[in-house]
Amino acid sequence: MENKVAIVGCGLIGQAWAVVFLRAGMQVALYDTAVSAAEKAKHSIRNRIDDLIAFGLIEASQLAGCSDRMYVAQSLADALSDVTYVQESGPEQLELKSILTAEIDKLTAADVPIGSSTSGICASDYARDVAGAHRCLVVHPINPPHLIPAVEIVPSPATSEAVTTQVTALMQRVGQQPIRLNKEIDGFVVNRLQGALLSEAFRLYQLGVASSEDIDKAVSEGLGLRWSLMGPFQTIHLNAPGGISDYVARFGPMYHEMFSRQTPADDWAVTLKNGLEDEVSNTDPVEEIEQAQANRDVALMQLLARRARVQSA
Amino acid sequence: MENKVAIVGCGLIGQAWAVVFLRAGMQVALYDTAVSAAEKAKHSIRNRIDDLIAFGLIEASQLAGCSDRMYVAQSLADALSDVTYVQESGPEQLELKSILTAEIDKLTAADVPIGSSTSGICASDYARDVAGAHRCLVVHPINPPHLIPAVEIVPSPATSEAVTTQVTALMQRVGQQPIRLNKEIDGFVVNRLQGALLSEAFRLYQLGVASSEDIDKAVSEGLGLRWSLMGPFQTIHLNAPGGISDYVARFGPMYHEMFSRQTPADDWAVTLKNGLEDEVSNTDPVEEIEQAQANRDVALMQLLARRARVQSA
Repeated sequence: MENKVAIVGCGLIGQAWAVVFLRAGMQVALYDTAVSAAEKAKHSIRNRIDDLIAFGLIEASQLAGCSDRMYVAQSLADALSDVTYVQESGPEQLELKSILTAEIDKLTAADVPIGSSTSGICASDYARDVAGAHRCLVVHPINPPHLIPAVEIVPSPATSEAVTTQVTALMQRVGQQPIRLNKEIDGFVVNRLQGALLSEAFRLYQLGVASSEDIDKAVSEGLGLRWSLMGPFQTIHLNAPGGISDYVARFGPMYHEMFSRQTPADDWAVTLKNGLEDEVSNTDPVEEIEQAQANRDVALMQLLARRARVQSA
Repeated sequence: MENKVAIVGCGLIGQAWAVVFLRAGMQVALYDTAVSAAEKAKHSIRNRIDDLIAFGLIEASQLAGCSDRMYVAQSLADALSDVTYVQESGPEQLELKSILTAEIDKLTAADVPIGSSTSGICASDYARDVAGAHRCLVVHPINPPHLIPAVEIVPSPATSEAVTTQVTALMQRVGQQPIRLNKEIDGFVVNRLQGALLSEAFRLYQLGVASSEDIDKAVSEGLGLRWSLMGPFQTIHLNAPGGISDYVARFGPMYHEMFSRQTPADDWAVTLKNGLEDEVSNTDPVEEIEQAQANRDVALMQLLARRARVQSA
C-alpha cells in the first residue's frame, strides 16, 4: 500500500491525525498498546469525520470508502508493514518514547519517516540511540490537528534533509500548514509564542491590572481577531504607513520601555491560588469542560468553514 | 441633544469612532484643527458605513438619516456644546494632549466624560493639571474600532468612579467590549500582550529558529484561530481535563524551564536589518500596504459577519 500511514497511539491526538490522513484519501492503520483503545478510536474518528461533513469542511464524496481505508492493527509489526509514514503519539515521557521509537524503527522499512507528536521532547533526546535516527523528527500538531492546520516540523541534527523535506511535503499534501524549524529549541515556536503571551497574562492578573475575563477579552475581542487572519509580523507591518520598520521606529521604544521595567514573573501556581483559578472556573466549571471543548470545536469548524484569507494584492 | 458625541481629531481613529457612535444612533460632531480634514473625514466615514452595510454588519435601516446625524463643527466650542461624551483622538504627544485636554475641559459642560484614544500616555500624565481631571480617562481602541470590539478603559487615580462606570456602560451600549483596567500601566493590557508575543517572535527570528513567514503561520494557522474564539486563560482551561490548574500542573514546569533559559532580547531594529525587514516586505511590499490594509479590513468584516461565539454550556 503506497498510501498507508500508521497511527501509533490512539488517544485524542492520534485520532485527529487519523482524520487528517483519511481526509486526504490515505490508508490508516490504528495501533495502540490496548487494542480496545484502537477499536474505540475508530468510532470517534468516524464521528469527527461526520462533523467535518456536517460543517461543510469536506465533501462526503471525498470520504467514500473511508471506513475501508482504516483498520485496527493487532500488533505494532502489523501496523507498520508497508507504510509510507509513521505518526507516533505515545506518552510524553522520554524513556517510554525512546523505547517506542527504537521499536518502531526496527519494524519499519528503511527510510520511511517516523514523526512524533511530542510537544516537549526533542528528537535529539528521544531518538539519540535509535539506529535510524536520521529518519526520526518531531511533527508537532496544534490540538486538534484536523481543525488547526499549523504543524511544527522539528528535525534533530541527526535527521536527514531528505526526510525533513519529504515530511514537509506530505504535510502540505494532506492539507496542513508546516512550520519548519531550523533548529531544536525548548517549546518549539508555537508553545514559546503561547508561553510568552501566557506569562504576560499571568503577570497582569497578579498585578491586579484587570480581571481574567477582561484579559481574555483583550485577545478574543481584540488581538485574536487580527491574529486569526495574519501573524504578529504581518500585523505590525500593516499597522504603519511605511511597514514593519516604520512601526518599530514609531513604537519600538514604547515596547522596549514597557518590558525594561518588567517585574519578574510570579509562579503561575501562586497566581492561580490568588483568585485566577476561581474566576476562570466560574465561567467554565471544571465539570463542564468536556462540553466546553465540544463547543469550542464546533465554533472552530464554523470559523474554518467561512474563514476568509487575506489575499496579498 | 442628549445623544451627541464630539469627535476631536478626525484621523483614521477618529473616523472609525464616528462610525461606532453613528451606528448606535447617536449624533456626532466632527472637529479637527483643520476644517478640511473634518470635511474629508465625513466622506470616509460614509464609505466605512457603506462597507458595513455591504458585509451585512449593520442594517441599512439602522443608519437612516445617518448623514443628518453628523456635522463638521466650525470650532471646538461648537463641537463640544451640548455633548454627552467627548472622544479625543489628537496627536500622541504629552504636551499637545495636555493643552488640548485642558481646552476641551474648559468648553465642555460639567461632568461630561472626556475619553482619549491614546495608546501610550496615561491620564495621570496628560490630565494632571486639568481642572476636570476627575472626568478624564483613557478610552483606547484597537484599530479600527468599528471592526474590533475591544476597548481599554483606563482611569487615572484622579478619575471618579462614576465617570469610569458611565463610560464603560456607554461603550457597551454602542457595541464595544470594554476592558476595564484597575490601574495605569505602560502599554495597558492589549499592547503588553501584543508586545510579549512580538518580543518572542523577534527573538525566535533572531536565533534563526524559523522564517518570519513560518513564525507568522504559527499564529495565523494555529494559535490565532483559537484566540479569535477565546482568550489565553480560557484556551488553557479547555486544554486539560481538570481545567486551568490541571494545565499549569502539567505544563507549568515546561514553560518555566523554557523562559528561565531565555536569552536577552535583541534590539528589534537590529533584527529587522538582519533579514526580517526584507522577508516581511517581500510578502507585502511597502508601497502596497494601503491595499493590504484594505484587504485586511475586508477579511475582518467577513470574519465578523460570520463569527461564531463559543456559548458556555
